[in-house]
Amino acid sequence: MDLTKLLKPKSVAVVGASEKNGFGGDVCRNIITYTKDMSRIYFVNPRRDTVFERKCYPSVTDIPDVIDLMIICTSQKTILPLLEEGAGKGCGGAVVFASGYGETGTEEGIRQEKELLERAEELGIAIMGPNCAGYVNYTDHVYAFAFISAERDRRGNIGVISQSGQLCLSMMECPSMKFSYNISAGNAKGIQMEDYMEFLVEDEHTKVVSLYIEGVKNPSKFVEVLNKAAAKKKPVIVLKAGRSNKGQAIAASHTGSLSGSDASFDALLKKFGAIRADDLEELTALSLLFSTIPRLPDKAEFASMNLSGGETAICADVGYLNGISYPDFTSETLAALKEQLPGYATPNNPLDMTATLSYDADLYAKVLETVMDDPNVGMVLIGYTLLYEIADPAIYYMYEGIKKVAMKKGDRCKPIAIIPFAENTRNPEYQEKLFRIGVPVLPPPVYAFKMLKKLADYINFDYSSVSHEIALPQRKSDQTYALSEHESKMCLKEFGVAAAEELIVTSRREAEIAAEKMPGAFAMKIESAEILHKSDVGGVLLNLKGAKEAGDAFDLIMENVKKHCPEAGINGILMVPMLKPGLEMIIGVNNDPQFGPMIMAGMGGIFVELFKDVVVYPAPVNKAEAMRMLQSLKAFKLLNGYRGGEKYDIDALCDTIVSVGNFAAANKDSLKELDINPLFVYPEDEGVGVADSLIVKYGEKRRC
Amino acid sequence: MDLTKLLKPKSVAVVGASEKNGFGGDVCRNIITYTKDMSRIYFVNPRRDTVFERKCYPSVTDIPDVIDLMIICTSQKTILPLLEEGAGKGCGGAVVFASGYGETGTEEGIRQEKELLERAEELGIAIMGPNCAGYVNYTDHVYAFAFISAERDRRGNIGVISQSGQLCLSMMECPSMKFSYNISAGNAKGIQMEDYMEFLVEDEHTKVVSLYIEGVKNPSKFVEVLNKAAAKKKPVIVLKAGRSNKGQAIAASHTGSLSGSDASFDALLKKFGAIRADDLEELTALSLLFSTIPRLPDKAEFASMNLSGGETAICADVGYLNGISYPDFTSETLAALKEQLPGYATPNNPLDMTATLSYDADLYAKVLETVMDDPNVGMVLIGYTLLYEIADPAIYYMYEGIKKVAMKKGDRCKPIAIIPFAENTRNPEYQEKLFRIGVPVLPPPVYAFKMLKKLADYINFDYSSVSHEIALPQRKSDQTYALSEHESKMCLKEFGVAAAEELIVTSRREAEIAAEKMPGAFAMKIESAEILHKSDVGGVLLNLKGAKEAGDAFDLIMENVKKHCPEAGINGILMVPMLKPGLEMIIGVNNDPQFGPMIMAGMGGIFVELFKDVVVYPAPVNKAEAMRMLQSLKAFKLLNGYRGGEKYDIDALCDTIVSVGNFAAANKDSLKELDINPLFVYPEDEGVGVADSLIVKYGEKRRC
Repeated sequence: MDLTKLLKPKSVAVVGASEKNGFGGDVCRNIITYTKDMSRIYFVNPRRDTVFERKCYPSVTDIPDVIDLMIICTSQKTILPLLEEGAGKGCGGAVVFASGYGETGTEEGIRQEKELLERAEELGIAIMGPNCAGYVNYTDHVYAFAFISAERDRRGNIGVISQSGQLCLSMMECPSMKFSYNISAGNAKGIQMEDYMEFLVEDEHTKVVSLYIEGVKNPSKFVEVLNKAAAKKKPVIVLKAGRSNKGQAIAASHTGSLSGSDASFDALLKKFGAIRADDLEELTALSLLFSTIPRLPDKAEFASMNLSGGETAICADVGYLNGISYPDFTSETLAALKEQLPGYATPNNPLDMTATLSYDADLYAKVLETVMDDPNVGMVLIGYTLLYEIADPAIYYMYEGIKKVAMKKGDRCKPIAIIPFAENTRNPEYQEKLFRIGVPVLPPPVYAFKMLKKLADYINFDYSSVSHEIALPQRKSDQTYALSEHESKMCLKEFGVAAAEELIVTSRREAEIAAEKMPGAFAMKIESAEILHKSDVGGVLLNLKGAKEAGDAFDLIMENVKKHCPEAGINGILMVPMLKPGLEMIIGVNNDPQFGPMIMAGMGGIFVELFKDVVVYPAPVNKAEAMRMLQSLKAFKLLNGYRGGEKYDIDALCDTIVSVGNFAAANKDSLKELDINPLFVYPEDEGVGVADSLIVKYGEKRRC
Repeated sequence: MDLTKLLKPKSVAVVGASEKNGFGGDVCRNIITYTKDMSRIYFVNPRRDTVFERKCYPSVTDIPDVIDLMIICTSQKTILPLLEEGAGKGCGGAVVFASGYGETGTEEGIRQEKELLERAEELGIAIMGPNCAGYVNYTDHVYAFAFISAERDRRGNIGVISQSGQLCLSMMECPSMKFSYNISAGNAKGIQMEDYMEFLVEDEHTKVVSLYIEGVKNPSKFVEVLNKAAAKKKPVIVLKAGRSNKGQAIAASHTGSLSGSDASFDALLKKFGAIRADDLEELTALSLLFSTIPRLPDKAEFASMNLSGGETAICADVGYLNGISYPDFTSETLAALKEQLPGYATPNNPLDMTATLSYDADLYAKVLETVMDDPNVGMVLIGYTLLYEIADPAIYYMYEGIKKVAMKKGDRCKPIAIIPFAENTRNPEYQEKLFRIGVPVLPPPVYAFKMLKKLADYINFDYSSVSHEIALPQRKSDQTYALSEHESKMCLKEFGVAAAEELIVTSRREAEIAAEKMPGAFAMKIESAEILHKSDVGGVLLNLKGAKEAGDAFDLIMENVKKHCPEAGINGILMVPMLKPGLEMIIGVNNDPQFGPMIMAGMGGIFVELFKDVVVYPAPVNKAEAMRMLQSLKAFKLLNGYRGGEKYDIDALCDTIVSVGNFAAANKDSLKELDINPLFVYPEDEGVGVADSLIVKYGEKRRC
């Protein structure tokens, strides 16, 4: 549905306009405070002639103009008739604050919501909400927002969409935050989060898209929009509820969102270079950072400049804990700094400039320029605790120094940010002044360096090496069935996963004959889709040799299985050459109901389970992505010649991951899960070996 | 040296009193602003009759009073004569702002510092500094501080000591921070950090001791004070530079502090339950938290109450990421909440109260009381973004509600803290009001939950189960030498570390005879303190049996060693029964030059090296501490019956750690390092086995 009339209306009716507290009054107050041109804004209330000295119309129909947007401040029962009325006036969008819909979880609420959305669709009216706090379009001065905030100019380039009105308001109340749009999406069942996202990614006034979401409703559009944003290099910053089980439950009960697996969601963001924030403060501060700096750093290399040794040590330590890279200064930079700084200073990165320089704007500018001009530096971090009430004049000089450099360098000025060391201290006047020359004031170090690491990852993200496809699933059944080991391996083999020559025998005699063709030792395993833990029932014998042992093994396995699983359907016994042991990896797939098959890779059992050293990534993947998956594991070092040891066949391992991803993508609608455990990885150029494999699918049992 | 005259003077002379900017002027301005009783404060300046309309004396000698403290604002060259003069007036303390001493790193500066301190000692004058910013004693209104800060009442119970004047000032400037003392220690070579610490731990007005340190100068006093603070249950919160190599270098160059190993320092803090902050904001906020809450929670179990679903989800998620425990509410609590909350709310912990309650103080108080009365809850966290400029009145009602509960409950009121969701938003008036009823406003979630986890650890810390001794070393030599494997094992055996029967043979014949007495297979290894990598030179043969193999092995090993290490001194060949394999652990010791032997425990190679799954703890340890060391490892699960697997002999492993600790403590002055690698841990009741061991000592080679 087209959102133009909803989000960029030329004429607006406020239905339920009022002077009292509450939706009607607060919206009118907001509009009067912020709107520049009131000529096509109409207040509607049958019980009043005027509201805040402006004419009030008895009904929408009475307004002598076409109406693009209705801001409906009245209660649930009035909504449907109002939509009918609005449609007659050309209305194409409505903000509905009223609650009592799907979020109640009641049958009646859900029915009402469905009826509302169906009617709106028929009438061609895009509904924001219900149960929302509305929105502000700062670019065009449309103020359809129901909460009162402190008065200040907020027009800027951050586009916010939030499933919580409270969090919208909190972002508005942060000094220096400047928005293109701030949208409280509410239940967002008609016009969805993903529709607003698309709008903002395309909106030329929006530089950063900033989201609080409780769940994704339209996965395919979500993926499409992430893809689009990555292609445009427009940062998308996401705070999503549901890292914890309790968080998931709260998100589900709050706006009735279906929250998929958090690991899948996280993997999806990573794939498209979207940035995940851990809380609202980080979402806000990251948005401010991306919004304020005039351009991204060319490289993720930071210089840190401070006024005291203590502060310099904090930047060194907290930077290090967060993986921030402080390159060494070149000898030219060091020589220049030696001249510019007092004799007792020791030039280095992070740099303790000493406090004396903060009282000399020219010298401060000179040092800043020296540091910025170092070819190893991508961005300059200035440590300074900007107090709320400024008692010490240092910031006056520092500001002048920074401004001087920013003006002199123009477009060539590398990005700068301020890091304070304690909070509740940012003087609004100077925060604003710094903002206007493109210098954001970040939160204190624990937040700041966490954020800068995310900025670094964003800079290093290479969209061109990412496969753009995602295998969004359409599950057709809730029934599941397993494939046997042999069936599983054969399915994977079709997609290029290495498989040993193996065969199924159904009698002692066949086993004896087969044994003679085996090149070396072999294993025999019961072949049945109904026996998943083969060893537990005596269904596996290893390291066998020759016809006699094969025959005996056949009889013994059959006897064991008959005893333990008399009912199980059996295909025979699988005879497979013993694999030589290698480095043990696990490759798995879990099919996320929203985002499709997620490939999981990690080293054997305890590495995955105790150390959580595992990577998850959406299928399919290309080889570069497979390589990055492996590189993100701590265990990667073991693959890559740890302590002068063996280098393993990483190339073959990447090929296997790509093949598994292709298989999973091709079977996205029917695959439940897949496990290759263990996958032996052999030394360089010697490939990999699938020691066991299991596929579980949705649907009625059949061969894949 | 007694610090009374320095830190609690009855009469004060400000030498170099002035009206200009700079030390002399700023100290006078501070004193005039804050001092209640000026009757025994004397300004000294030979060139002025008055300063700020107060009489100025030409010299200290001219003051008609005895002088406890001199605040010396004049330059380096005046200091020594002033000390002489002050001594004649009974002076026992002096604050020296002047720089140019040891911090310059020059010979002249170091000489000057030495002279200053020696003379002060002779005269019985306790020196703060040099190169410091002075201190404030808020309890007795002594304002000997050289930086100007915004005027407000800061009298409270946080005692700060900082090696950075800048960081002192930043803490002073944080709203609601209330101090007993705030001490900028400067070079702190005479009166040291540790002396101030001792003073504050003993000071009855100080509830929390808060430190920024760049290095410890007096390890034995540092340990003594930590011990004392732990015994008194007075929290010590420490920000220490040097987590990173760059941070260590900066700390070393800033105040010339010697920074020991950060891991040792960290281990020491853990042992005594001291709390480590990651940056200044955390140090400040942790201090405020401990300072403000009227008592500690009885248990580390939190309830979270919020006004919106989004905020509740953030508390759930960020709490979870930080290991915060939200117990389920009892059925009684849930039933009461169901009655008190609106119908659409879903009572749970964390709790979304919905916003409606924040406009009804009585109902808010009722819900808060219900949550607080839940027997599972130790502390209540109220999520609320306290804005700087309050536009929405909710906080009025919430504050009244909280106050009502605090008043009603009195001493039985469980601790409460406020968590805002975005920063730069704490209204000073309400922050102060909340502070006065014992409710701190924490920083946003990423900081807040990190801090609350540290509070939880502090509550759970059990000083009674900690051994109070620390083996502080006095290294007597820089030379080092290694013991052979057998020597190492024998040294450890004396302290109770299990050792197999093993013997050294020096001829083929001896080897053959010994072989016949071996109960099973055995290993033979070259026995030499000069060959540390025995396998690399063909000095190890495993799984031998019988006299013939023993004899051949003897010859082969001797031949190999003669070829590869013709110069090495050799004791013979060690014959040792093959140990059955077990779970492989590493136990090590590194002797920290400041804090003595640190025991290291972890699972074999890659666990320690790739996953950093290793614990470090000061020697000696008791068995409870050994157990906690193991429990802190991720690999502990593997010892303790992972996935229904074997349970290993944790008891014997703890005994081994205790024994190693005792050995290390007994050899604290001579031990360099020790390695038991691997230590095989066997199933329950089957003990452990030392497979190899190496001890390196300081000094001339001799048997331990």
